[in-house]
Amino acid sequence: MANTVKIRVPGTTANCGPGFDAVGIACTIYNELELTLSPQAGISLEVAGEGAGAIPADGSNVAIKAVQMVLNKTGRHYPGIALKMVNNIPLARGLGSSAAAIVGGLVAANELTGCQLSKQEILDMATSIEGHPDNVAPAIFGGITVSIMDSGSAKYLRFLPPKDFSMVAVIPEFNLSTKAARRVLPESVPFADAVFNVSRSALLVGALCTGEFKLLLHALEDRLHQPYREKLIPGMAQVLTAARQAGALGAALSGAGPCLLAFTDGDSDEVGQVMVKAFNIHKIKARYQLLNIDRQGAIIL
Amino acid sequence: MANTVKIRVPGTTANCGPGFDAVGIACTIYNELELTLSPQAGISLEVAGEGAGAIPADGSNVAIKAVQMVLNKTGRHYPGIALKMVNNIPLARGLGSSAAAIVGGLVAANELTGCQLSKQEILDMATSIEGHPDNVAPAIFGGITVSIMDSGSAKYLRFLPPKDFSMVAVIPEFNLSTKAARRVLPESVPFADAVFNVSRSALLVGALCTGEFKLLLHALEDRLHQPYREKLIPGMAQVLTAARQAGALGAALSGAGPCLLAFTDGDSDEVGQVMVKAFNIHKIKARYQLLNIDRQGAIIL
Repeated sequence: MANTVKIRVPGTTANCGPGFDAVGIACTIYNELELTLSPQAGISLEVAGEGAGAIPADGSNVAIKAVQMVLNKTGRHYPGIALKMVNNIPLARGLGSSAAAIVGGLVAANELTGCQLSKQEILDMATSIEGHPDNVAPAIFGGITVSIMDSGSAKYLRFLPPKDFSMVAVIPEFNLSTKAARRVLPESVPFADAVFNVSRSALLVGALCTGEFKLLLHALEDRLHQPYREKLIPGMAQVLTAARQAGALGAALSGAGPCLLAFTDGDSDEVGQVMVKAFNIHKIKARYQLLNIDRQGAIIL
Repeated sequence: MANTVKIRVPGTTANCGPGFDAVGIACTIYNELELTLSPQAGISLEVAGEGAGAIPADGSNVAIKAVQMVLNKTGRHYPGIALKMVNNIPLARGLGSSAAAIVGGLVAANELTGCQLSKQEILDMATSIEGHPDNVAPAIFGGITVSIMDSGSAKYLRFLPPKDFSMVAVIPEFNLSTKAARRVLPESVPFADAVFNVSRSALLVGALCTGEFKLLLHALEDRLHQPYREKLIPGMAQVLTAARQAGALGAALSGAGPCLLAFTDGDSDEVGQVMVKAFNIHKIKARYQLLNIDRQGAIIL
């Protein structure tokens, strides 16, 4: 007998300036994933929306890998895996599309195999596929998360700010693999730069926890990854500056980029427009999307 | 005519593991400072308690320096400066004795010269004398602070946790100048160590803001300064381990040391005793003191 379940998973923005590999926010942009497990052998994948025609329909696909990991772990045998994805999260732009696919696959397969895995196990499995927990944690739990790795297991704090802010995601028309964006990072950094980011990431989480959003201007500053990634994203510094000048609370690279994210509590459209314009000056086509914090994380529809 | 004011200033613990130069907590251990400004030329200093006989009674004293800085800044002329200090904060142990002296001098002199300086100005002046804002910010504002430096001015967030925790300060019988403790720090660090501290300092502030104190065990981990300072403090690693094994939420070096600090929500005396014993094994005499968060910062008595 075939079993089917449908999951909705939010996109996520990670790093948020100084919080490299640690801070993540779930956003109100969603992928839907329908999983059918059946006795009929065969793997199939249908993709609509973002990534249609570009996502591999075999075991190299992270969503399928996630489903197979749950089947192995729970000792259940289903020769047939059919996935239908409806994707709104743009691929390889720094909005957590791979984390959403992984979390979707894990949560769906767990649901169809009797909910044997805890959320912590799902987090650890997702982290092992993704390589780091900063996107998968908010994709699972919603809200804002701070994650660390401790001997192969992810520990996390999840919280919601006491008041809302908006996010403007500016999505340029080119993609950047996380692998390529990691290759430009140095093996060592000046002590002063490490201390700089320690203070900013502490301030970032404090500002988000307490709602002191006026501190975000400085709390989003970073010296660990953004300066090295600037060369991969034409106009990056100018787009971030344009956002701040248009009244954004602060702005940063989203994940490994190339998407740039501004935090706002005012006219978000104006911020989005000036950011797109600043990209255009550098011959980069871009669009913007207004997002809020997703509070639910991955849910069964 | 002579003017006199008496100020109480809390001791402070800074760094708190990963939050190097950024995170500070005001503690319920206090110095009192009485300042008299008069037309009679001359500088005098009386010290009772910690530091009696050891603190220089001239312009090299940071409290006198602080008073003179306020007089210069406000354009007031008092040839006579008399300071009486009653000190409970041990000197050069990592509990913010110099920050308390500086803040005491600034706040007292500001009070006697018509309160012309804002708290932000006092913070910036204190930071310029101390060199970094992590102790002076909580000494001024009380509670927990996250401070950053931005083009010579300190920005800060001040908050209180939603529930209480206790602190056990274990004070060994030797002192360590901040200068000496800074000399052992490296000029550059592995990228992975910087990322490690970024995640822990973010988690630390999140755990303290939300009251998720069970996360402190990992949130107090540090790779930026404690590993380098271990050689200056015999038994440090063992004392911190003993605290954790005795049920402490977590433990870290206090400021630049040599004082070690455990966070507890249970039997604080037991934690203090095992920490003292662990120091003793390394032939270091030590005592412990139970502290709570001071919520008021510097106040006029």
